[in-house]
Amino acid sequence: MTTARFDVLGIGNAIVDVIARAEEDFLLAQGMRKGGMALIDGARAQALYEAMGPAVEMSGGSAANTIVGLASLGGRAAFVGKVKADGLGRSFGHDIRAAGVSFNTPPAVAGPSTGRCYVLVTPDGERTMNTYLGAAQDLHPDDIDADTIAASAVTYLEGYLWDPKHAKEAFLKAAKIAHDAQRKVALTLSDAFCVDRWREEFLQLMRTRTVDLIFANEAELHSLYQTSDFNAAVAGLRADIAIAVITRSENGCLIVSPDGAEAVPAFPVERVVDTTGAGDLFAAGFLSGLARGADDRTCGRLGALAAAEVIQHLGARPETSLKDLARENGLVD
Amino acid sequence: MTTARFDVLGIGNAIVDVIARAEEDFLLAQGMRKGGMALIDGARAQALYEAMGPAVEMSGGSAANTIVGLASLGGRAAFVGKVKADGLGRSFGHDIRAAGVSFNTPPAVAGPSTGRCYVLVTPDGERTMNTYLGAAQDLHPDDIDADTIAASAVTYLEGYLWDPKHAKEAFLKAAKIAHDAQRKVALTLSDAFCVDRWREEFLQLMRTRTVDLIFANEAELHSLYQTSDFNAAVAGLRADIAIAVITRSENGCLIVSPDGAEAVPAFPVERVVDTTGAGDLFAAGFLSGLARGADDRTCGRLGALAAAEVIQHLGARPETSLKDLARENGLVD
Repeated sequence: MTTARFDVLGIGNAIVDVIARAEEDFLLAQGMRKGGMALIDGARAQALYEAMGPAVEMSGGSAANTIVGLASLGGRAAFVGKVKADGLGRSFGHDIRAAGVSFNTPPAVAGPSTGRCYVLVTPDGERTMNTYLGAAQDLHPDDIDADTIAASAVTYLEGYLWDPKHAKEAFLKAAKIAHDAQRKVALTLSDAFCVDRWREEFLQLMRTRTVDLIFANEAELHSLYQTSDFNAAVAGLRADIAIAVITRSENGCLIVSPDGAEAVPAFPVERVVDTTGAGDLFAAGFLSGLARGADDRTCGRLGALAAAEVIQHLGARPETSLKDLARENGLVD
Repeated sequence: MTTARFDVLGIGNAIVDVIARAEEDFLLAQGMRKGGMALIDGARAQALYEAMGPAVEMSGGSAANTIVGLASLGGRAAFVGKVKADGLGRSFGHDIRAAGVSFNTPPAVAGPSTGRCYVLVTPDGERTMNTYLGAAQDLHPDDIDADTIAASAVTYLEGYLWDPKHAKEAFLKAAKIAHDAQRKVALTLSDAFCVDRWREEFLQLMRTRTVDLIFANEAELHSLYQTSDFNAAVAGLRADIAIAVITRSENGCLIVSPDGAEAVPAFPVERVVDTTGAGDLFAAGFLSGLARGADDRTCGRLGALAAAEVIQHLGARPETSLKDLARENGLVD
């Protein structure tokens, strides 16, 4: 095994967020499930955009947010995802490269426009997402470059990749290349309803050791094992995977391995402005700790720190250097 | 004179802001004048975008920001400005209409893309702007609808309109229609260097009573009268215009008329995050007071309140209902 060129390579849906504030009534009137992510088509996207308030456009995408967070923590980062060669696609490419991430997936020149996620943020800071996948539908196994995957210590994948047509093939191709090169593969379960759509396949990925590490929040975990019993779900994880990190919002996280479980507290937050990206940034912090060879607790604290930063402002990407923040909190040298 | 259908109609450059944080060193390396607004061409826009950090896209434009602020304060608002029928143009149109503003200027179908302002925000919260006018160059007197102008109690114009080719003709056409209908015309001087480019024409507008009310900050005022003596500049104003409102950042504002001057304090601000839009939102508050027939002091306080809201977050448009904020502060019923 040669020295890795990248600490983490992320593969995910390349999405630009269109973020607006909304009242609870708006979610109800639009038939939205608060806190969830719904997939929508082009016509629905247009109707929703017309109905929603003034918006801000900001690069997003779950794994992309994680990778940008990792770069902000000083990690060597790469991303694979599909945009179209249009205005939003250029913004996405600019933003991720400007954050220091290597991003070379060729944009689509035909077909649907760059994917968008319409994010409604309610006064309590909770976000409700409606995703038009657009060009992200066209991520293809050919977009997976074997050399780059083999040169990445961790390949990180989002569960949302199970939604587009060919992305799961790209996912499996990448996981095989990574393992053949003796690298690690990590997966985030993304969303409780995404887990509901792909439960058997996700469990299969874990049980066949196609993934080595998973990130899940409590709702995703309960959905995965179809149980409301937290301890039963944790026991399931212990049998199914080497490491699982369960995020529990203000209660921090629980790092579960076959040998045991370690609880790590969250960072206190003055005011939750927008929870978009909380899980993504937690994963960024945790993975940056892994890349430094930190212990479990430090990994968890780095995750908590990055998540705390991102929920205190609008948008899912860090507004400040997470490395400086980690240094101020004594988590990195 | 019939009852007005709109409290304020704004005419300005229709611009989407591309906002990024930057260090002072970046401004220096890029040869930028901190705190100012520079006009740039397409090639420079592209080079600057490539050099700058991850960005957020948000509708902007000086008069457009004012008009959105006015709508947020409950005022009846309309806007005239030129975008292209492209992605950013659609965002601009969506955002201003979603804010409750009447906006019917037909977008350009050919020619340059929608105008953009690259805003660099330094750690002290100061913003430095680089504007690619794009389609805003093509605002034309034909875009001025006489009925709408005549139906607006105040027509509000930005000094920046002197920069594009035909916009000043549109400006003069609108001012004449407004006065013929016994309405008022207001002008913001926009920027000290804009004043430097168009000093004689701006003074002419005031002295010929083409405008009835101007907004200026101290730098613009000193540039207008080419003096560093504040009292001399105020004396100049008194001779040249019926009402002038001089904004003085944390020192509030001074409302100057031929009869006297009234100082109104600012609202205290916890932390200045981004000064973009401070002057625009001050004008929004002041004009909303005028529309309600409020006294000078209340107009000034409404301006200060709206400005205080906008400088406490990134971007030049209000993030909360300014009407609710004004109510909480006892400035409206």
